[in-house]
Amino acid sequence: MTHQTDSQAGAAVKAADRAHVFHSWSAQELIDPLAVAGAEGSYFWDYDGNRYLDFASGLVYTNIGYQHPKVVAAIQEQAATLATFAPAFAVEARSEAARLIAEHTPGDLDKIFFTNGGADAIEHALRMARIHTGRPKVLSAYRSYHGGTQQAVNVTGDPRRWPSDTGTAGVVHFWAPYLYRSRFYAETEQQECERALEHLETTIAFEGPGTIAAIVLETIPGTAGIMVPPHGYLAGVRELCDKYGIVFVLDEVMAGFGRTGEWFAADLFEVTPDLMTFAKGVNSGYVPLGGVAISGKIAETFGKRPYPGGLTYSGHPLACAAAVATINVMAEEGVVANASVVGAQVIEPGLRELAARHPSVGDVRGVGMFWALELVKNRETREPLVPYNAAGEANAPMAAFAAAAKANGLWPFVNMNRTHVVPPCTITEAEAKEGLAALDTALSVADEYTA
Amino acid sequence: MTHQTDSQAGAAVKAADRAHVFHSWSAQELIDPLAVAGAEGSYFWDYDGNRYLDFASGLVYTNIGYQHPKVVAAIQEQAATLATFAPAFAVEARSEAARLIAEHTPGDLDKIFFTNGGADAIEHALRMARIHTGRPKVLSAYRSYHGGTQQAVNVTGDPRRWPSDTGTAGVVHFWAPYLYRSRFYAETEQQECERALEHLETTIAFEGPGTIAAIVLETIPGTAGIMVPPHGYLAGVRELCDKYGIVFVLDEVMAGFGRTGEWFAADLFEVTPDLMTFAKGVNSGYVPLGGVAISGKIAETFGKRPYPGGLTYSGHPLACAAAVATINVMAEEGVVANASVVGAQVIEPGLRELAARHPSVGDVRGVGMFWALELVKNRETREPLVPYNAAGEANAPMAAFAAAAKANGLWPFVNMNRTHVVPPCTITEAEAKEGLAALDTALSVADEYTA
Repeated sequence: MTHQTDSQAGAAVKAADRAHVFHSWSAQELIDPLAVAGAEGSYFWDYDGNRYLDFASGLVYTNIGYQHPKVVAAIQEQAATLATFAPAFAVEARSEAARLIAEHTPGDLDKIFFTNGGADAIEHALRMARIHTGRPKVLSAYRSYHGGTQQAVNVTGDPRRWPSDTGTAGVVHFWAPYLYRSRFYAETEQQECERALEHLETTIAFEGPGTIAAIVLETIPGTAGIMVPPHGYLAGVRELCDKYGIVFVLDEVMAGFGRTGEWFAADLFEVTPDLMTFAKGVNSGYVPLGGVAISGKIAETFGKRPYPGGLTYSGHPLACAAAVATINVMAEEGVVANASVVGAQVIEPGLRELAARHPSVGDVRGVGMFWALELVKNRETREPLVPYNAAGEANAPMAAFAAAAKANGLWPFVNMNRTHVVPPCTITEAEAKEGLAALDTALSVADEYTA
Repeated sequence: MTHQTDSQAGAAVKAADRAHVFHSWSAQELIDPLAVAGAEGSYFWDYDGNRYLDFASGLVYTNIGYQHPKVVAAIQEQAATLATFAPAFAVEARSEAARLIAEHTPGDLDKIFFTNGGADAIEHALRMARIHTGRPKVLSAYRSYHGGTQQAVNVTGDPRRWPSDTGTAGVVHFWAPYLYRSRFYAETEQQECERALEHLETTIAFEGPGTIAAIVLETIPGTAGIMVPPHGYLAGVRELCDKYGIVFVLDEVMAGFGRTGEWFAADLFEVTPDLMTFAKGVNSGYVPLGGVAISGKIAETFGKRPYPGGLTYSGHPLACAAAVATINVMAEEGVVANASVVGAQVIEPGLRELAARHPSVGDVRGVGMFWALELVKNRETREPLVPYNAAGEANAPMAAFAAAAKANGLWPFVNMNRTHVVPPCTITEAEAKEGLAALDTALSVADEYTA
């Protein structure tokens, strides 16, 4: 791994960015994007010679790390052979990607509709559910994220929804299990589970079971806080869906493809949804790709009746070739097992040890390479280190925490009062320990804001 | 260009496709996708040795043809350097793509928000317009297509909208100019233009100018029929937008990047919108990419206030590197001029000559590499060769036309009662003539259904 210093080149990249690139989720004049020169494995570096261990996996998507040589080679080979082809045709990379994905999806989720990412996967999944059932409404959870297009952001349950939440009938939000901040006054996981299911069934009753097309959940909510559901919850939702003829949609965009130490998070809970959305890890984001895995029952609805949706790049050959290579690499190199083993043997004990020493850590939760630390002002009151949706000065404690991590060579994932530990699933034990050490230092900064 | 016959490999690709790939806009059991083995320039071929001249450019997106060596090399190089990186950073390929696109967009459309394709570009453009104006409604045209996600398909004005057209307040459809089937009882282009503008202004008055965030139009409607607007229409819409404080959105997903013989179709009409969406031709679809070009005024709205939208793959380095190479190839190799010259000197006279001889051709219209033939039962009555949104037996004449074209080595673009002549902008004079000859034969089949 070589990375030369070239501050002048970095300045040029940055200048063109500030002149012409409009960035996601940002006030354009208030951001200061770091110019990135290169990346490999679990690390990336800037033009000034600073190297960072990426505990965020980009936006939780580079599950096999940066620049995996086999996937790079597969992209190069497909580019040389057939970079692109229209969706109405059968193309080798497309066929093989669909076959491989179906091989790993639970149950009979054997038909794959390819999209460009997670947002349009949700858009299409909800359309399939509405047409399959003939019902209008969708139930989704507060504390969730499902994508940035209008329909996807309307089912989202975080503040990113608010500015777009106009005139979109048919989305109803409910509360999912989250024992640390229980909406159900529960004291045990089992109680949280039972009450969350009671809450959901009562919501279904009052919304009208015959009006509800789909219940959509992230198998384990991601950006909203990695709240691993109690065992029994998702099976309970599955039962409610069966009881009321509702389509069960699991969003595995962030949790899928090894992140939890299983191919899909649904495997942890032995539950099979009717539709499952994916993106990110499917090809580690080397080429934009997402999709919906479809059960036999729903595929049948569109057997003789056209599915009214599509897109130019559905099953894009280059994206599919990257998926084929990624899935093969994950199988051949034991990437899923690595996420499970390093997660259980290094990350989890390491985080629990940090929590024991740092008063700012209120809760540690997760599985595999999918962990959240919830930072608090006070462990007894559980008051968050910063208020919900804080910005500017109110967010200073989390900004100070993030700055300290970066100063120590660790790029953290930060959302509200949490930091998520979501490194590549290929991370080594040594890299994990290096990251935990930097986290230790950064948490000392967070500790200064506790009381 | 070599292409070996390997029917067994083709059968395997097809079998995996039928088992696992769920196709866009299709009844899954009623389709029979052709297995494609390879492609180069203006041609592609199957596993049985059949070669086709692609008069559809895939789905009207391979503007530089298949497998352009310089773009393939750029993808390979970027894959080897930095295949992917998260959107919050400044990355060389992202900066350079934005700079190059801004260099070609009209007026002050100098900030580029990158998406994965055209549908999410429209989703984000409409969100920008609604927040910029604080108004809820969007006006769009019947006979239009803007994408397959919920919001994008709701502004669409073709039958693909109908199954999704539930509970989405705030979209109002109006009629745009189309002299051949005038909604305004017009007899000249000028009359059609004036009446279409009167119709639009009256619609604005009755919907309430203060309720309308945006008017969105394809600069030249694409799949809906390539109705080149009369000169003065788009300038008139621009004036109405200015008069009523409405954001003018032009969708250049299909018409942009050389298709019309200009960099953008807006250049033909000397009009500058407030937001312009693009995809397809920006990198000939070699890697999924789309975006919104944003005026200074609207970018300023999101200067100190966050833009509430985003996506994981915004400004994807691999997609952006393909855009940089594609735009450079188009400039260096005179691709835009080629579209204009071959369009004016070969395609247009060739199509007019075919129209003179074939009674099934009711109208010929277009510009550059963007042409439509409207097929009719009878030139006097202008009755379409097949009814609007025909399927099955009712669509037999168009199916017979398409089959005849394919049997003659021409892959046509067919929609309803039209065939569009939309080959790569790199097409040679000889290839154009070869396609016109095949079209001649296929139109003889269409002629059999005239009366």
